[in-house]
Amino acid sequence: MINVAVLGAGRIGHVHAANVAGHCDAVLAVVADPFIENAQKLTAAYGGRAISDPLEAIADPTIDAVVIGTPTDTHVSLMLAAAQAGKAVLCEKPVDLDIQKAREAQRVLGERASRVMLGFNRRFDPGFSEIHQRLRAGEIGELHQLLITSRDPGLAPMNYLKHSGGIFRDMAIHDFDLARWILGEEPVEVFASGSRLFAPELEALGDYDTVMVQLRTASGKQCQINCSRQAVYGYDQRIEAFGAGGMLLNDNQRETSVRRYGAQETEVRGPLLNFFMQRYTDAYRLEMAAFIRAVKQGGDVPVNIHDGCAALALADAAQLSADTRQVVQLN
Amino acid sequence: MINVAVLGAGRIGHVHAANVAGHCDAVLAVVADPFIENAQKLTAAYGGRAISDPLEAIADPTIDAVVIGTPTDTHVSLMLAAAQAGKAVLCEKPVDLDIQKAREAQRVLGERASRVMLGFNRRFDPGFSEIHQRLRAGEIGELHQLLITSRDPGLAPMNYLKHSGGIFRDMAIHDFDLARWILGEEPVEVFASGSRLFAPELEALGDYDTVMVQLRTASGKQCQINCSRQAVYGYDQRIEAFGAGGMLLNDNQRETSVRRYGAQETEVRGPLLNFFMQRYTDAYRLEMAAFIRAVKQGGDVPVNIHDGCAALALADAAQLSADTRQVVQLN
Amino acid sequence: MINVAVLGAGRIGHVHAANVAGHCDAVLAVVADPFIENAQKLTAAYGGRAISDPLEAIADPTIDAVVIGTPTDTHVSLMLAAAQAGKAVLCEKPVDLDIQKAREAQRVLGERASRVMLGFNRRFDPGFSEIHQRLRAGEIGELHQLLITSRDPGLAPMNYLKHSGGIFRDMAIHDFDLARWILGEEPVEVFASGSRLFAPELEALGDYDTVMVQLRTASGKQCQINCSRQAVYGYDQRIEAFGAGGMLLNDNQRETSVRRYGAQETEVRGPLLNFFMQRYTDAYRLEMAAFIRAVKQGGDVPVNIHDGCAALALADAAQLSADTRQVVQLN
Amino acid sequence: MINVAVLGAGRIGHVHAANVAGHCDAVLAVVADPFIENAQKLTAAYGGRAISDPLEAIADPTIDAVVIGTPTDTHVSLMLAAAQAGKAVLCEKPVDLDIQKAREAQRVLGERASRVMLGFNRRFDPGFSEIHQRLRAGEIGELHQLLITSRDPGLAPMNYLKHSGGIFRDMAIHDFDLARWILGEEPVEVFASGSRLFAPELEALGDYDTVMVQLRTASGKQCQINCSRQAVYGYDQRIEAFGAGGMLLNDNQRETSVRRYGAQETEVRGPLLNFFMQRYTDAYRLEMAAFIRAVKQGGDVPVNIHDGCAALALADAAQLSADTRQVVQLN
Repeated sequence: MINVAVLGAGRIGHVHAANVAGHCDAVLAVVADPFIENAQKLTAAYGGRAISDPLEAIADPTIDAVVIGTPTDTHVSLMLAAAQAGKAVLCEKPVDLDIQKAREAQRVLGERASRVMLGFNRRFDPGFSEIHQRLRAGEIGELHQLLITSRDPGLAPMNYLKHSGGIFRDMAIHDFDLARWILGEEPVEVFASGSRLFAPELEALGDYDTVMVQLRTASGKQCQINCSRQAVYGYDQRIEAFGAGGMLLNDNQRETSVRRYGAQETEVRGPLLNFFMQRYTDAYRLEMAAFIRAVKQGGDVPVNIHDGCAALALADAAQLSADTRQVVQLN
Repeated sequence: MINVAVLGAGRIGHVHAANVAGHCDAVLAVVADPFIENAQKLTAAYGGRAISDPLEAIADPTIDAVVIGTPTDTHVSLMLAAAQAGKAVLCEKPVDLDIQKAREAQRVLGERASRVMLGFNRRFDPGFSEIHQRLRAGEIGELHQLLITSRDPGLAPMNYLKHSGGIFRDMAIHDFDLARWILGEEPVEVFASGSRLFAPELEALGDYDTVMVQLRTASGKQCQINCSRQAVYGYDQRIEAFGAGGMLLNDNQRETSVRRYGAQETEVRGPLLNFFMQRYTDAYRLEMAAFIRAVKQGGDVPVNIHDGCAALALADAAQLSADTRQVVQLN
Repeated sequence: MINVAVLGAGRIGHVHAANVAGHCDAVLAVVADPFIENAQKLTAAYGGRAISDPLEAIADPTIDAVVIGTPTDTHVSLMLAAAQAGKAVLCEKPVDLDIQKAREAQRVLGERASRVMLGFNRRFDPGFSEIHQRLRAGEIGELHQLLITSRDPGLAPMNYLKHSGGIFRDMAIHDFDLARWILGEEPVEVFASGSRLFAPELEALGDYDTVMVQLRTASGKQCQINCSRQAVYGYDQRIEAFGAGGMLLNDNQRETSVRRYGAQETEVRGPLLNFFMQRYTDAYRLEMAAFIRAVKQGGDVPVNIHDGCAALALADAAQLSADTRQVVQLN
Repeated sequence: MINVAVLGAGRIGHVHAANVAGHCDAVLAVVADPFIENAQKLTAAYGGRAISDPLEAIADPTIDAVVIGTPTDTHVSLMLAAAQAGKAVLCEKPVDLDIQKAREAQRVLGERASRVMLGFNRRFDPGFSEIHQRLRAGEIGELHQLLITSRDPGLAPMNYLKHSGGIFRDMAIHDFDLARWILGEEPVEVFASGSRLFAPELEALGDYDTVMVQLRTASGKQCQINCSRQAVYGYDQRIEAFGAGGMLLNDNQRETSVRRYGAQETEVRGPLLNFFMQRYTDAYRLEMAAFIRAVKQGGDVPVNIHDGCAALALADAAQLSADTRQVVQLN
């Protein structure tokens, strides 16, 4: 059995703790959070010891793997400490909001980077990963264009947004990772547009509520991403992969399969899975399973800090592009 | 060019007159209606002479084909007169409400029956006829079960219902014809249930507002039909053909291909084509084209009085079954 | 915690054992099966003791609840023994293949019947139960017609079919229960047609491969059920509830949300959830949760032996109707 | 009645001639084409005189309106001649491939521009125009993002492509017009990427087979367009309008409403309407109706040469952007 410590007992720590506890090869051994009550709530539900100091968990020789779900600015130091202590690591995205700091962490990790997994959960979504797999299997031939729609159901509180790093680094970073992964090539060109169409208060943060991004790889593959901080109809998460031999689409998921035909309208389908933890329940579970499998088998993790840095670099480029209204070339 | 006389300038006469006028091989030569103003409206729009006496049109030697859209109780006499005058005939369903009278007409027609077409327009609906054709082509192997949903958008006025012959002879007769045609075999067993769930005033007529019918052919093919006089969401017309090698479905048609995602619901599709003349616009046009083609080429019409009598016999059996709560065997 | 004994370690015992083990208020204490190796496989995976004699589990005073997943002909005796021993019971359908024996069991149980749940898992399917709940909430007004499509992906082995009781008692019994539950009234009239369209070997068993059933309640509500032992495209499980104010539909569930557009066709959706244990995974889990909740709170179980007898009576009536080609009236 | 002359008896001239002939307020008086046999084919089918010289038609005082479907490089001279002769004009897109020449034509036309309609047929597509109308009616509040997918079913012959002006001016020009019309504001920023992913022979023409374009208006509305010269699954024409209060989508249209469930797959829908003349049959008919209405009522045409120049300017900007990999600002 793999002994796992979960650092951070917030919303995402809760998701990870439950998935560890539900996995047949893993045990939730420790939950660490400075707010010890939060840690205790999780251990009461899913087992393990509650402690307040994450470094104590990292120092514990019985711990095999560490899951980092703490605030972003602690990711790098905890990741480095855990890796140095010989633990396998699953760290929430982003590595850091500062690309220099993220790249320095990558450099310091060296060969240990292959044991530090980044939490890009969407790669484990059944629909998205099926498209990736069927593409690789050649089902629609060479990929030509990729379309990603990624809209949140509602604007997060200003307090959250203030420390989020902006819509590109906080939200679109998932889409940049998906784009790299599905395109199978690095984007070399980024153009982004940012608007404030309903949240003028974002101007003070230099942030946007509505963005579009266009990417191109060296071989000419193309990708368009559209994001909004607020889709009133729910969490809109779709991709379309268009290739020489056809197209693969993954549509939104709904709470219910029941449809209504009524006097005012035909037909009405139910609401979208509305929150990222509902929509990506399976993705988080399968992400944890992939992590535990890598820990158990001693191989490389399937998404690592290199991916974390690459997605962050795209987010930075998009921010620069939107701010300057210029294309950004990468190399 | 085929010279066509349309008898009856009501709702259905209007449909036929327009389709004759729009056909490149036919000319609308005459419209006959005792209410001459109605006939004149049609000839003003689509050409031809307006007259009041249908027999005058039948007697006119320049007329090649006669379309009968008059009240049901005049169908037989006009059909016989026109056939006897050597005209090709397209007669609206039903032949008559009285099966004896219908069969007598069939007997009198003799060989001329092959030139008397019955207006079972749904056979010419693109979706239904495609299912028929793909079934015959073997796409889903041997047919096992057929499901027909047939619901009107709203209850017709009592004045109409009083002379309609009841829900089986007036409305489900289309479904009986579809069933015979798609099954490709004669039903030998009929069981029907009739209810008055929202229109108690139908009791006085011995009629029902809601019915279900189950048919079986000699070889064991099965069919279920469900009808209602009132579907608040519109005109619900669907069929499902289930066979050894798969299933073919034809869903409802909508006014618009636009879908809305809104704050209260996702997603909302537009209303169904709501009235039989909208829903079956193509069917009526293609029915007329098939009639004119048969007239021009001198061959048999694709649906004839034999089909009209057979569907009426099923309607009679269903009425008897619902009234007596017994199965009716046919031979 | 509720201590649960699972009797029978076959396919369905496996499903129940896993759901007991995964429930936070229950413990899998015992698995009993004459083939002790089967019982041991389950206890190895989900905990508890493996024994060979189900009566030993029933006699165990530490056991609160008994789940019966043994062969049908043992249901009644085990159910009565367990109930008499004061246990709550969840028994797989059917109560028995013999309605007399089932009714006798019901009589013997007396007041204890309220603690004996029947395993009509489809009532707990999220889509079906949502339709039931929205109907009861008045969303489409008074119910007029109910359509149930229920087709297996492939013919079961003859060895199974021989002891199954026939398509009505084995397979359609789920649909009869659904019909009673959703109609909210007892059917008083049953008409069924049975055919052997692809499995002539069923003649020796007096069984059918393809059936249709039509039901009517005293107030005139109507229901049509269609069943086949073999739908090549997968496990086809749909219902449509049509009422005065609209319609509620529950469509099939698919393995994947990915759709393909290719050179030969647009668009192609993935296969249906193909096996009852996949399709009704949630239903079985929620059924067990409902049972455990009833045990814990001491209230009545949500589906009981009365429902089991009523569904069996409908199956018997359908068999009689199909065999004699007569309507069967119930009272 | 409006007397119409159709100039050019090619593919698009045929469409227009048929729509003129089918309109109750118009008469096809003349078809002019240097290949007189082509003109004669049309007049044989739809009436009117066939002549070889378009200027003869323009000089004919009995002609009220002129439809220009000749090669692109003759559009400006014929349009100016017809307008000067006092005719109403419907001219196929583009005005010209040279924006200077197009703007000069606009200048010369002066006030007569309001009687010169440009053939941006997609504005008259029922689905697209419904989205435009519902947006204007406020159904989804302020528009934030617009997505346009526009893919041809297959690469046109090199001979056509050589004189087409390139993918932006030939194909995407429709999407630029749609974007301007639906956004309701002028784009001020254009970024385009062009690739040759399957047709390397386009390099000699400086043309691309696969392009993506991103637009922004002064108020910050955003638009993404994706085009391909070859979608193996058919003619892919979709738009999504996303706003503060929801989203409106128009999906592709299919040849048939029949769906198949088979052993290898569920479910399979039929092919897309595959050719622009099938897909936009209604659009062309409604475009002609709008033109004839404007001619009859003497008002302004609904799309004019100003729109033609503006769309061409966007196409030029996209070409420049793709060629230079720079953003292009417009003013």
